[in-house]
Amino acid sequence: MRMYDIIMKKRNGGELSQDEIRFFIEGYTKGEIPDYQVSALMMAVYFRGMTEQETATLTLAMADSGDRLDLSDISGIKVDKHSTGGVGDKTSLALGPMVAACGIPVAKMSGRGLGHTGGTIDKLESFPGFTTSISRKKFIENVNKNGICIMGQTADLAPADKKLYALRDVTATVDNMSLIASSIMSKKLAAGADAIVLDVKTGSGAFMKEEADARALAEEMVKIGKNAGRNTVAVISDMDQPLGYAVGNALEVKEAIDTLKGHGPADFVELCLALGSQMLLCGGRARSAQEAEEMLRGVIADGSALKKFAEFVEAQGGNAAHVSDPESLPKAGIIRPLPAPISGYVNKIVCDQVGICSLILGGGRETKESDIDLAVGLVLCKKVGDFVREGEALAMIHGNDESRIQEAERRYLQACTILDTPPEKRAMIRAVISG
Amino acid sequence: MRMYDIIMKKRNGGELSQDEIRFFIEGYTKGEIPDYQVSALMMAVYFRGMTEQETATLTLAMADSGDRLDLSDISGIKVDKHSTGGVGDKTSLALGPMVAACGIPVAKMSGRGLGHTGGTIDKLESFPGFTTSISRKKFIENVNKNGICIMGQTADLAPADKKLYALRDVTATVDNMSLIASSIMSKKLAAGADAIVLDVKTGSGAFMKEEADARALAEEMVKIGKNAGRNTVAVISDMDQPLGYAVGNALEVKEAIDTLKGHGPADFVELCLALGSQMLLCGGRARSAQEAEEMLRGVIADGSALKKFAEFVEAQGGNAAHVSDPESLPKAGIIRPLPAPISGYVNKIVCDQVGICSLILGGGRETKESDIDLAVGLVLCKKVGDFVREGEALAMIHGNDESRIQEAERRYLQACTILDTPPEKRAMIRAVISG
Repeated sequence: MRMYDIIMKKRNGGELSQDEIRFFIEGYTKGEIPDYQVSALMMAVYFRGMTEQETATLTLAMADSGDRLDLSDISGIKVDKHSTGGVGDKTSLALGPMVAACGIPVAKMSGRGLGHTGGTIDKLESFPGFTTSISRKKFIENVNKNGICIMGQTADLAPADKKLYALRDVTATVDNMSLIASSIMSKKLAAGADAIVLDVKTGSGAFMKEEADARALAEEMVKIGKNAGRNTVAVISDMDQPLGYAVGNALEVKEAIDTLKGHGPADFVELCLALGSQMLLCGGRARSAQEAEEMLRGVIADGSALKKFAEFVEAQGGNAAHVSDPESLPKAGIIRPLPAPISGYVNKIVCDQVGICSLILGGGRETKESDIDLAVGLVLCKKVGDFVREGEALAMIHGNDESRIQEAERRYLQACTILDTPPEKRAMIRAVISG
Repeated sequence: MRMYDIIMKKRNGGELSQDEIRFFIEGYTKGEIPDYQVSALMMAVYFRGMTEQETATLTLAMADSGDRLDLSDISGIKVDKHSTGGVGDKTSLALGPMVAACGIPVAKMSGRGLGHTGGTIDKLESFPGFTTSISRKKFIENVNKNGICIMGQTADLAPADKKLYALRDVTATVDNMSLIASSIMSKKLAAGADAIVLDVKTGSGAFMKEEADARALAEEMVKIGKNAGRNTVAVISDMDQPLGYAVGNALEVKEAIDTLKGHGPADFVELCLALGSQMLLCGGRARSAQEAEEMLRGVIADGSALKKFAEFVEAQGGNAAHVSDPESLPKAGIIRPLPAPISGYVNKIVCDQVGICSLILGGGRETKESDIDLAVGLVLCKKVGDFVREGEALAMIHGNDESRIQEAERRYLQACTILDTPPEKRAMIRAVISG
């Protein structure tokens, strides 16, 4: 078999066989097939697309390219949740304890994010002493004992995807639905869960700006999951403005705790209930979405979700006292309101710009080596649809550096559109897609 | 400027600017732009194509990427001839002396071919002592004195093309008319002639199997030539069976000498006259194709073309005695007829297969390092349209190794189709394309 013939076949519109796809992925992972042939193939895929069968095979080949996490020692149906990413997305922090309290084992291996704010692990490190550097044995034990544990990424999950994505990123071959879907799903399949609930975001803060694209991606991923024998459901959710009010590491942890206490922002609670319901259904813990939602509301109302969160923090070296008293978490030196320049209805908050504000304040990583300031960020006071009076606070800025704060303020004002009339309302949950 | 943006622009169907194309070619030649980005761009070009302007710019950028031959010290209009290659193509050997005898300076820098038989230089080395390792000064002197000289490729002509072609060759991105045309023309432009006559071949022994493709390529190249300010004409000629009768290095030299003596095969003579006429017209030596053809027939009839050839061989270290007595050129140890298995009309001789027969006999290079056996090859006895009786010779096989001869014989018989009825006649000259 020759890589040349594989490129030619795809270029001419043919369907690659399982053997051909595995040959290419294995050879590329081992370094036997050069980058320049792979980038030519990726461009041919961009123009010719891939069939459902090809996409499934590619995903499995990438999932098989490195370690596969073995979660078989954890009893129960393991349900993983994955978000395509957004601004103020603290969903895992609240949802993990919620579903764990409902009896779904949460066993997550996480990496550190390169983004506007940190990843889940970075956020959790707002608790002094909290660690994800634990052995696999301890990881399994913790899940079996507490129902929830997060460990740092020690295993080499889907290295072929890592290599392929890095190449696509510099050769303008990222934008293909099958390739995007297989990239996400290969990591999820290697991560070992029995079922997968996908949070596919759409809007100005999402990778998929258009809802149609988000749907197409969701459909591709659900198909891949089914083809791989994993129950997979996707929820299409709004990311046209930040999720909830808080953007920033410790600030998002506080908002997650508020949510577990029953005081969460409406949009964030709605999303947690929608995703949590699907997780409970996949995990066989509820027979209907309504029943699942009631269970989730129940573990908030009776305090068991919050208790689960405290146990989880404590089990991984954090101090549960901070859960009871979130004000004791890291706090910025300067906290001040950003006044609205005019009165009117907030019509738009360009979401990825808000993410950049957080990055400017020091809340995210510009490069892999950057340090994160856990305390900084923004807390929105007005969301889209809200009326604001001139001089009233649009948001509270939390920063530690005056010049950075001023830059973030300027950018935040640019990102907001205030008009005389209210905007049309966008629904938080757009669709639920299952196979 | 970023290569990423250039790939993206072409991928999305945009037209690349002069600056963008020059940035890419200069960066790639210097090794600053990696292969994997260039192969992705080439695949995008395969799908999106290039405009006339883009193709012209790419060609000039590649022509400018290395040395440019300066022929200004040669008086007269320098007309270069280029063939897209075929089997039994000894055209330069006969045509060079013919047009030189008519007053067109022939100043050629040639490389060694990787093909079924050697390149022009290999063939000329059938004359013991013949050398193309001469200085540029001597080269210019020879052309000014004798009207004709060929030197080995010492200059680094169009290195960007060399690098790009090697990459396209392993990434299935060769088959694009603009890229093929710019590859050929970049080298021609760097080679310094004032006008270019292209012999674009079509048929089973040609790169362009289909006449429509040959025409498209010819049109692209003529456009490029015009855009670069060089008078350029293309002749579309048949290569569905070997040209003339002889295939093999010394065998082709003998056939070229026969032709200069007035005994050339009809198809080969027709091609030489067609190409030579265009060269004389481009060089301002004739006012009409008819007049040009008469001049060319004249230099054969009066022996001046043959004399020019002998002078040329002698001037570069060969012995003109071999021109008078071609039988003294290298000769194979085994020369035997290949009998026809049945009686009938030769309907087809799959041309590239005949080339492979010559390669098997030792007449070509399988790799750059291979040695060539100048003596071996085939001489056809029957061409397409001829009637052959069972047992009568289809071709004479010239070889030095019994097992290779037998393999070549088997393959040659496979390449021939003999039927009860004669085939339709294919014209040698299909079209002449000028701007």
